[in-house]
Amino acid sequence: MPRGIKVAAPATISNINCGFDALGLAINYTCDEIVGRLVDKPGIHLNLVGANARSTPSDPTKNTVTVAISNFLDALEESESLGIELKVKKMISPGSGLGSSAAGACAGVMLVNELLGRPMEKRQLLPFAIQGEYVADKSWHADNAAPCLLGGAILIREVKPLDIHRLYTPRGLYVTAVTPQIRILTKEAREVLSERVDFKSAVKQAANLGSFVHAMHTSDFDLLSRSLEDHLVEEQRAHLLPGFYDAKSAAMKTGALGCGISGSGPTIFVLSNNENSARDSAAAITKVYADKGIESTSVVSEVNQAGTVLC
Amino acid sequence: MPRGIKVAAPATISNINCGFDALGLAINYTCDEIVGRLVDKPGIHLNLVGANARSTPSDPTKNTVTVAISNFLDALEESESLGIELKVKKMISPGSGLGSSAAGACAGVMLVNELLGRPMEKRQLLPFAIQGEYVADKSWHADNAAPCLLGGAILIREVKPLDIHRLYTPRGLYVTAVTPQIRILTKEAREVLSERVDFKSAVKQAANLGSFVHAMHTSDFDLLSRSLEDHLVEEQRAHLLPGFYDAKSAAMKTGALGCGISGSGPTIFVLSNNENSARDSAAAITKVYADKGIESTSVVSEVNQAGTVLC
Repeated sequence: MPRGIKVAAPATISNINCGFDALGLAINYTCDEIVGRLVDKPGIHLNLVGANARSTPSDPTKNTVTVAISNFLDALEESESLGIELKVKKMISPGSGLGSSAAGACAGVMLVNELLGRPMEKRQLLPFAIQGEYVADKSWHADNAAPCLLGGAILIREVKPLDIHRLYTPRGLYVTAVTPQIRILTKEAREVLSERVDFKSAVKQAANLGSFVHAMHTSDFDLLSRSLEDHLVEEQRAHLLPGFYDAKSAAMKTGALGCGISGSGPTIFVLSNNENSARDSAAAITKVYADKGIESTSVVSEVNQAGTVLC
Repeated sequence: MPRGIKVAAPATISNINCGFDALGLAINYTCDEIVGRLVDKPGIHLNLVGANARSTPSDPTKNTVTVAISNFLDALEESESLGIELKVKKMISPGSGLGSSAAGACAGVMLVNELLGRPMEKRQLLPFAIQGEYVADKSWHADNAAPCLLGGAILIREVKPLDIHRLYTPRGLYVTAVTPQIRILTKEAREVLSERVDFKSAVKQAANLGSFVHAMHTSDFDLLSRSLEDHLVEEQRAHLLPGFYDAKSAAMKTGALGCGISGSGPTIFVLSNNENSARDSAAAITKVYADKGIESTSVVSEVNQAGTVLC
């Protein structure tokens, strides 16, 4: 059996304005890196390393990596005497809006699948990654885990049962992700959402998501830009992210196609139709927060097409 | 100038379950036929003929044909001395859920555009048709007028300003439309709609509309079928259409992809992936209503691609 395997899972942008719980895409920035090997001592032995180790739960019933792997091993009916040692390096802190919980879960199941000689196809691993992510925010959603595992921009029709579809990515589409140093937890961000919405908002949200999908298939950047509206969530969550509207306004002035809160924030994402514009957006948003005395990190990337990979 | 021109506008199916106010398609069944010519006597002279003439308003401020044409002539800044004589034959009664109001308006503006030597492109006529339809139900929507005028299956992102997109139609897609003799008015059907909906329903509606668009682009009939759910309107309107759930259940048993209320009813539409299944659905729904002592008419058709045409 192979020993000492390394797997990397990318950061992901979810919701994308018109697609709450229904859209996500992967970017070329490694979120989680896990090195693992089979060991004699039974159980999953997790070793969290790197700057963000402290903000990740080490309790195996609360850690997305171990929960995802445990569910996977249960499905395989693997012997309880199996021993797995994992060194998890989190490049991005949980609660950043870049799919950190999903990335750990995806990397974990992908790695164990490899250690065991690949008993499942990559796509079959997704339910276990989603189960892992569930322990972090108590919500069933696939808009981080699906693009993280599979790459690309993914449309999620349904989580239970899984009904996900990879969209064509137009050439020239760039993603900017700026993360100001503000803390928001997914669970709290979900709690602010109202249980009822305007009928008209629901109609507009649907029309925009339909248009987003059409725009991707037809490489229509003008339509993509018009469809990047959020009629369900943005208004309810914006107060959790001070300066968001200033940042959005600054990004749109650089020629961005659209701008919004990634997942439940604090990361702000921008879609652009060329790399220069994407870099200008990153600079503009970084400046808005710098002027408020808040530091940010930023990434500019094309849509990642590979998802979680062996490396 | 040309004289004695004839124009035909097709019937249309709107809403299509997951696309309230956002989806419509045309079928190969003529809804309105108008013959018109320029005359010396100034004004629009409307002559309603055929079995459904009685149920169509003859007051020019309430008739969709004359209102559409008046708006069109205003936009052209045409002389008030212009005289137009029209003979309007309505094949389908207003209030059937097959876009009768839109068809009259589309045929009217298309015909006058031809009479005047085509001052506008076909697509530019759409706003006037929508204005005409507005007088019938006091609602701005393009999900009948857009497919009626242009043909095909159309996604409407926005009515004001118009933002509409023709979807690829997969080979083999068939439409069944069964109209039981039950009267429902669009205006009343709109009044039953609640102003607020569940957040979860809004998320599902959007995911289904996105999936419908993806399914059309990729000819994925299985996904098309799964996406044909209505989380916003069907439950609220079904009581206006006795027997609807029986009819839907009967249609689905014949292998239909999906079934719903066309527009605000009473027409029930079915989508199928072959002609035999489409015909079986028509028979099954017709039988459900026959057993209740209600007569129906039915049409089975591919998606009409030509829209409103000169003939």
